[in-house]
Amino acid sequence: MHWLKDYRKELLAGDIGAGVIVALMLVPQGMAYALVAGLPPVTGLYASLLPAVAYAVFGSSMVQSVGPMAITSLMLGTSIAALAPAGSALYMQLSQQLALMVGLILFLCGVFRLGFLSSFFSRPVMSGFTSGAAVVIALEQLRPLLGLSHHWAFGTLHVPSAAVGLVALLLLVLGRYALPPLLKPLGGWMADMLPKLVPIFVIVGATVAVAVLGLEHTGVKTVGAIPSGLPPLGLTLSHEHWRSLLLPSLVIGFMAFLAGQSAAQALAQKRNERINTNRELLGLGAANLASAVSGGFAVTGSISRSAVNYAAGANTPLATLVSAGLIAMALCVPNAWLSLIPLPAMAATIVIAVVGMMDMSTLVESWRHDRSDAATLVATLVGVLLVGVEEGVLMGVVLSFASLIWRSSRPHIAIVGRMPGTEHFRNQERYSVETLPHTLMLRIDSDLIFNNMDGVIERIEHELQVRPGVRDVVLVLSAVNMVDTTALLALNELNKHMGEQKRRLHLCEVKGPVMDRLKLSKLLGKDLTGQVFLSAAQAYQHLAGEGAA
Amino acid sequence: MHWLKDYRKELLAGDIGAGVIVALMLVPQGMAYALVAGLPPVTGLYASLLPAVAYAVFGSSMVQSVGPMAITSLMLGTSIAALAPAGSALYMQLSQQLALMVGLILFLCGVFRLGFLSSFFSRPVMSGFTSGAAVVIALEQLRPLLGLSHHWAFGTLHVPSAAVGLVALLLLVLGRYALPPLLKPLGGWMADMLPKLVPIFVIVGATVAVAVLGLEHTGVKTVGAIPSGLPPLGLTLSHEHWRSLLLPSLVIGFMAFLAGQSAAQALAQKRNERINTNRELLGLGAANLASAVSGGFAVTGSISRSAVNYAAGANTPLATLVSAGLIAMALCVPNAWLSLIPLPAMAATIVIAVVGMMDMSTLVESWRHDRSDAATLVATLVGVLLVGVEEGVLMGVVLSFASLIWRSSRPHIAIVGRMPGTEHFRNQERYSVETLPHTLMLRIDSDLIFNNMDGVIERIEHELQVRPGVRDVVLVLSAVNMVDTTALLALNELNKHMGEQKRRLHLCEVKGPVMDRLKLSKLLGKDLTGQVFLSAAQAYQHLAGEGAA
Repeated sequence: MHWLKDYRKELLAGDIGAGVIVALMLVPQGMAYALVAGLPPVTGLYASLLPAVAYAVFGSSMVQSVGPMAITSLMLGTSIAALAPAGSALYMQLSQQLALMVGLILFLCGVFRLGFLSSFFSRPVMSGFTSGAAVVIALEQLRPLLGLSHHWAFGTLHVPSAAVGLVALLLLVLGRYALPPLLKPLGGWMADMLPKLVPIFVIVGATVAVAVLGLEHTGVKTVGAIPSGLPPLGLTLSHEHWRSLLLPSLVIGFMAFLAGQSAAQALAQKRNERINTNRELLGLGAANLASAVSGGFAVTGSISRSAVNYAAGANTPLATLVSAGLIAMALCVPNAWLSLIPLPAMAATIVIAVVGMMDMSTLVESWRHDRSDAATLVATLVGVLLVGVEEGVLMGVVLSFASLIWRSSRPHIAIVGRMPGTEHFRNQERYSVETLPHTLMLRIDSDLIFNNMDGVIERIEHELQVRPGVRDVVLVLSAVNMVDTTALLALNELNKHMGEQKRRLHLCEVKGPVMDRLKLSKLLGKDLTGQVFLSAAQAYQHLAGEGAA
Repeated sequence: MHWLKDYRKELLAGDIGAGVIVALMLVPQGMAYALVAGLPPVTGLYASLLPAVAYAVFGSSMVQSVGPMAITSLMLGTSIAALAPAGSALYMQLSQQLALMVGLILFLCGVFRLGFLSSFFSRPVMSGFTSGAAVVIALEQLRPLLGLSHHWAFGTLHVPSAAVGLVALLLLVLGRYALPPLLKPLGGWMADMLPKLVPIFVIVGATVAVAVLGLEHTGVKTVGAIPSGLPPLGLTLSHEHWRSLLLPSLVIGFMAFLAGQSAAQALAQKRNERINTNRELLGLGAANLASAVSGGFAVTGSISRSAVNYAAGANTPLATLVSAGLIAMALCVPNAWLSLIPLPAMAATIVIAVVGMMDMSTLVESWRHDRSDAATLVATLVGVLLVGVEEGVLMGVVLSFASLIWRSSRPHIAIVGRMPGTEHFRNQERYSVETLPHTLMLRIDSDLIFNNMDGVIERIEHELQVRPGVRDVVLVLSAVNMVDTTALLALNELNKHMGEQKRRLHLCEVKGPVMDRLKLSKLLGKDLTGQVFLSAAQAYQHLAGEGAA
């Protein structure tokens, strides 16, 4: 908590202002994400209280807002729904136990400095996953939004509920897309913040409408009674469910970390600060442990809420402490007005929030850049939609590693020659270059390792077969960062075989670390039929000289 | 069978001679490996008959000798022992079914051109696996060698059996290590071949000893009655065992392919021929299918037997047809003499054969070259010894891919400078180089992909933080063969972030395929804060000029 030690008075106004705004945002959002998780709305408020305090103590970001988040809520909901009936005491209990396990996993990952594991998830996988989860959440919210009694049973539409839900949705859409251009000329803080506060106004407006028109008597569902007082501390564990919660808690833990980490990173960059990945793991771990023992569920940093916190002027974690204090007050004062918030309006805010999470630009960018990345993205998305949220993301991770392995097994090999008048060597298919008559210069654009070495040797032997006149082969290793034992042995055999054919194998542009390793083997000793040149230019010059002699 | 069309008379003598020698070798060896597999000795002869003919039709190697082989026999024995009691009819039946499945898998891999899958097995994994399997086989042969009634029960040693076994072993050791130097001065064909025929002489001698001394009456176990006549054609399948045989048949199929392929490749190189991997798969597949329907078991090309075939003068697969014909004759004529071959002598030939398979040189080489390869080798070996033959090799494959992924996630990044008076750029930690005051030139020795990009960006930002004076960063991409979407997006963010800090990001030495892809994205458009240079030298010159101006 070094921020507290160095606290300066002039930071206070910003922190308090931001704390108030984030609290206003958190009350409806927390309750909404509790509903996404299949939990009572009040647990969303509990999850916004102690976890925020715990993060303020252990986390590394100055402006992170920790609490419920759409995707982790969806994931924990689907995981626990498989183990316990919705609304049961066991359901509540398991959601706390899951938060405990997520917290432990994140905390231990932080202690053992495993932050680097987050790089297992490529951007296309994350993008496909996020978009897929957003679609799943949005579709699930159609039921409360339209007051349907079952999913997809559009015949059961409840007109007053649908009216509230659709009007709220319309206002939210206008607030999101029409308001910013209108406010732009005003400039300043308000132009930035007002559109982000629209959901709060819509919730308040809808609640007032329910109260004034008595809509709850026509059958419009509302949040209902919120228990008064601070969250109960404590935790009941189910011993038989540890194992079945393990995979979900690993996956949710990872997702919580990735979401929190990317939120923290994005804002730290704006503030010219650096995020310590392992401290971030500790902070999120502590937040989840706090959530588990205070009636909450799995939490993480939310990019949208943290951005509001930052934009509203937050300077330190004091802002989130202010938010937490306000939520604690809201729980302690009579809060009957919260009970009248209509669920259709709540569903509308969820839909608009997750629509904002859908990410087409990564798809477009990866389609342009690399089709296999785009395919991985689409496969992850489709997997999330059709198979399941966790299964989809795991599929994406497996696919991205499979494509890494596949790519590394098919190296690009270029026949190179000298650019006239220079010391540069380029692919003869792309440039018009000079070559020597009895010499073949090959640049291998990949590490030489077990899963591609067969292909490399086959290619070299093929080139030699179609060029019976070639006497010298020069391997340009400028792009080779690693030669493993399999490749070393294969090079040795190639060298021997070439010797039997009265041909010579030369190497050039060998990197330092590769050279260090080759020196330890026999290949570079007296066995090499050719020489090792520092550069391709030296090899060219030497062999040209030999040819002339 | 193009070799038959072009057959010339002058090839005949070599083929017949080699065929006779290989047949002499195959009779005891086939029976021995049947015993390793837990099958009646005669099945080893059956497995040397039709499979060799099938390979001659479909295979691509001219000198491959297809039949039983020590490691595949061990593997199929342990797989089937888990499903059926030794010696039962089901055991026989399942070994044929396994051969069928291995044959189908290999044949289909050949049809779908999946030969490249063999590169999943690195040399260290293969070496650890082979050595481990050799130890397992050798230890198992101690029981028949010494006439023990149980494994490791040395108290139950049967003196006449142990005498036969140990004398045979002694003669084999002398024949292997003492004979070749003695014969060397003679030179020629016999000096090469005689040591390899020692096991045949030992078996014949031991059999004669048994017959003359009546050792079988003292309790020395012998091969026993060999059914007369050609193998029965046909196959009974067990429908309930398909699933449990699937994994073993995949692993055995792979091992059969790797063994056969490496035998074929080694000899093809000596004959200046090329092996078509997918034709090899078809040949081995056909051989196993033939084995399945003719009372045999899983077979493959044996490197030791094929080398004898080659050395004895084989020119075409006619040699193996001659061997098969001789074995068929041996089965049809009265063969009571075969029944007297003592098992201890047979065990001695197996031990000496597998001791030759133990491979220390790959361990030494990989220890010198790359400790993680050596660790993979040892882990595979220990896994084979302690966990199981199949489990061990699968563990090795998983480990080698895990280390591939691990390595690719920790790229080497060098700060480079210009070698005085040249256009070459080298690591400033290894060479004394010239650098520019406000410029940082970084060479990234790895592809830029999702699982290392976080680390790369972190490293760059760290270098910038400790060098506040740096205004220009030049990324030297000579070793970058791939920039995936994740890396592209991260580069974009780095570029933006550097722009905000009034710094510029330059690229140079961008490879053709990488450039093609970068051009499709926005990064290289107007967004790049710096420039793209063809070479590091150009970047250096340009930035030096700017600094001077």
